[in-house]
Amino acid sequence: MAPCYPDPPDATGLAVDELDTPALLVDLDALERNLATMAGFFAGRPAHLRPHVKTHKCPEIARRQLAAGARGITCAKLSEAEVFAAAGFDDILIANQIVGPGKVARLMALAHRARVTVAVDDQENIAALSEAAQREGLRLPVLVEVDIGMGRCGVAPGQPALALARMVADAPSLELAGLMGYEGHLVLVRDPAERKARVEAALAPLIETRALLEREGLPVRVVSGGGTGTYDITGAYPGVTEIQAGSYVFVDATYRPVRPEFEPSLFILATVISRPDPGRLVVDAGLKATTGEFGPPQVVGIEGVESVRLSEEHGRIALAEGHTATLRPGDRVRLIPSHCCTTVNLHDRLHAVRRGIVEAVWPVAARGCSW
Amino acid sequence: MAPCYPDPPDATGLAVDELDTPALLVDLDALERNLATMAGFFAGRPAHLRPHVKTHKCPEIARRQLAAGARGITCAKLSEAEVFAAAGFDDILIANQIVGPGKVARLMALAHRARVTVAVDDQENIAALSEAAQREGLRLPVLVEVDIGMGRCGVAPGQPALALARMVADAPSLELAGLMGYEGHLVLVRDPAERKARVEAALAPLIETRALLEREGLPVRVVSGGGTGTYDITGAYPGVTEIQAGSYVFVDATYRPVRPEFEPSLFILATVISRPDPGRLVVDAGLKATTGEFGPPQVVGIEGVESVRLSEEHGRIALAEGHTATLRPGDRVRLIPSHCCTTVNLHDRLHAVRRGIVEAVWPVAARGCSW
Repeated sequence: MAPCYPDPPDATGLAVDELDTPALLVDLDALERNLATMAGFFAGRPAHLRPHVKTHKCPEIARRQLAAGARGITCAKLSEAEVFAAAGFDDILIANQIVGPGKVARLMALAHRARVTVAVDDQENIAALSEAAQREGLRLPVLVEVDIGMGRCGVAPGQPALALARMVADAPSLELAGLMGYEGHLVLVRDPAERKARVEAALAPLIETRALLEREGLPVRVVSGGGTGTYDITGAYPGVTEIQAGSYVFVDATYRPVRPEFEPSLFILATVISRPDPGRLVVDAGLKATTGEFGPPQVVGIEGVESVRLSEEHGRIALAEGHTATLRPGDRVRLIPSHCCTTVNLHDRLHAVRRGIVEAVWPVAARGCSW
Repeated sequence: MAPCYPDPPDATGLAVDELDTPALLVDLDALERNLATMAGFFAGRPAHLRPHVKTHKCPEIARRQLAAGARGITCAKLSEAEVFAAAGFDDILIANQIVGPGKVARLMALAHRARVTVAVDDQENIAALSEAAQREGLRLPVLVEVDIGMGRCGVAPGQPALALARMVADAPSLELAGLMGYEGHLVLVRDPAERKARVEAALAPLIETRALLEREGLPVRVVSGGGTGTYDITGAYPGVTEIQAGSYVFVDATYRPVRPEFEPSLFILATVISRPDPGRLVVDAGLKATTGEFGPPQVVGIEGVESVRLSEEHGRIALAEGHTATLRPGDRVRLIPSHCCTTVNLHDRLHAVRRGIVEAVWPVAARGCSW
C-alpha cells in the first residue's frame, strides 16, 4: 500500500522546533532511564521480562529492550509478529489466539522463520494448530490461556485448564510450553497495597493450576503474564516465569500516577493554530494524532490548563482564570498521550530526540498490524 | 516509510468470507445509494456539496462524490490535501488554519499545483500567508472563519470578522473568497425540529456577517459550513453556498439515528477468536481496528447483544440471558464503527464489496496525514 504522500523529508539532525507537526517524539534520555529501571528490577530474579512490543511497534526500541536484558518479545497479533520476525527477532510470543485457516497458514509460515509461541483456549483451535503443524513438519509451542479474572479470553483455572493442557501435550505436533494469565483488570488499581493484594489473589489459581499440571506429569516451563501496572508484583510471584509489560518504556498520562518510578518519554509535538480568545488555545493535534478512549492528553509546561478537548484534528485547551499563557499561533506545545499504545498506532514514524535534537527517525514498522 | 510488512495479497475477487481479519469493508450498493440520496438533495439548489474527504481519505470515493455532482473537496489538513492533489484533485478547501513557516511553505508549493483555499482567523497568519504568496507570485483564496457557537477556531461574527476580511481584501496576494462557519456542536442534536431551530439560530449571525461585508464592498463568493448532521438545514439556508458533509457516505453508529435517510456502508469484519463461556464472544477487533471515543461499535446480525467492550486488540461481546448466538471461534462478525472518520484512519486499505465479493481494494491514501 502506498504510504502517506509525500513522505516528509528525513528529520534526523533537526532541532525539535523545526519538526512539522503533529509529530510523535520519544525522549531518549527518559526512554533509557525507563529501560534501566525495569532492567534493575529483573536483575537476579528468576522471572524475566518479555516486553510487549504492541506499545511501540518499533524494532529499534525492541532491540534496546533486548540489549537491556529482556528475553524475547511479546506481540499482540500475527502481523505484528511477522514484522518483528522480518526485522530479525527470533523468539516471539503471540499472546493471543490464532484462529481460522488463513491465519493458521500464516502462522505456520512464520514458525519456519522464527520460534513463535501462541496462546490457546479452545479444543478445535488446538486440533487445527496441531494438524497444520504436523503437515508442515513443525512442533509449535503453545501456552494454555487461563482467565484469572479479566473476563476476556482463557479457560477457567484448575480442571478446565488441565483438560486443555493434556490435549496440547497429547497433540503430536504441539509442545505444551506452559500457561498464560493476564491480570489486565488490575493494572490500573491506584493504591499499591490494594493492587498487590488483588493481583496476588488473581495469580494464586494460576500457580495452583501450574502445580496441578505438574502433579499430572505435564511440564510447565513458562508461566507468562503481567503488565506495566503489575510487573513488580507478578514478576516477584513464585512460579511466574515471564512478564509481558510494554507501556513502561513510555508511561502515558494514565499510567503515570500508578508507576512513578518511570517517567513519560512519549510526547505529541503540536502547534497552536488559533488563539480566538485569551482563555482558549487550539492546537493541530486531535483524535487522529493522540487517542481519546482513556481521556484527554496532558499538556506539558502550561500553567492554568482547565481542560483539553479533542476533536478529529483539533485539540482545544481551555485556560483557567488567571492563567499566564502567552502562546500565539505558531508556538509549540507538548502533549503526553493518555494511551501510548493506541496513540503510537496512529503514526508512521517516531522522532527519537535527545536534548532538543532529533537523533533518529524510527519507523513504527508494525503500525496498523492488527490482522 | 515502510508499510506494514508483509503486505496482504491482493484480495480483489475474493469472497468476503475469505478475507483475513480485522478488515475494513465498504458495501458498494449502500455507498452508491448514499451518494445518490445526497445528490438528490442538492439537485437544483443554489448551494452545492464540497464533501469532506477526512471521512474516507480515499481518492476512489472522492471521485465517486464528484461524479455524483459534488464541486471540489474539503480536506482537514495540508498533508491530506497534498495526497488528494497528487491523485488529481484540483479544487481543494483546507477547512483549517495553516500556521508556521514550514506549513506555509508547503501550502505555497501545493498552491502551484492545485486551486487551494484555506481558512484564517488571525492577523499575523494573514500577513504570513500574504507575504509567502507574494514571494511565490500566487494569489491565495482564503475564507475568514467565524465561530458560530462551536467554540473551536474562528473569530466572532460581525465587526471582528469584518476587520479580518478587510485585511484579507487589502492583502496584495490573497483573495477574499468568503466566510466559513461550522455548527459542529449541533450536528448530533437528536430531535430534528430542535436541530433545525438551533442550527438556523447559529447560521443567522454568519449570514448577517456576509451582508455586513457586502455592504462594506467586500465580495463574498463562498459561505462554507455544514456537516452530515445538518446538510439539509444549512444547505437550504439562504446565503450558504457550500456544505462540507463527509460522514454521509458511511453513516456510523453515532450518526445512524440522526440520519435515517442514509444507511451504514462501513463495516469492520472480525473473527471470533474465543468463546470462553456461552455468554461471551471475543473477536479480533479492538481499539486498533475500530475507535472508541464515541462508544463501542454495533454488532450486526446477532440477537441478544448486551454490551461490547473494546480493549486494544479484542472486542468482548456480552450476550444477554436467552440469546441464541451459536458462533464459534473462526466464525465471522460484522461491526458498525461508532466513529467512521477515526476508524478509517486506522486502516491502510478499504475493501469495496458488492453482494459478498470484493470488487476492489482501495488504498486509504491519506491515512495518517494529520500533519
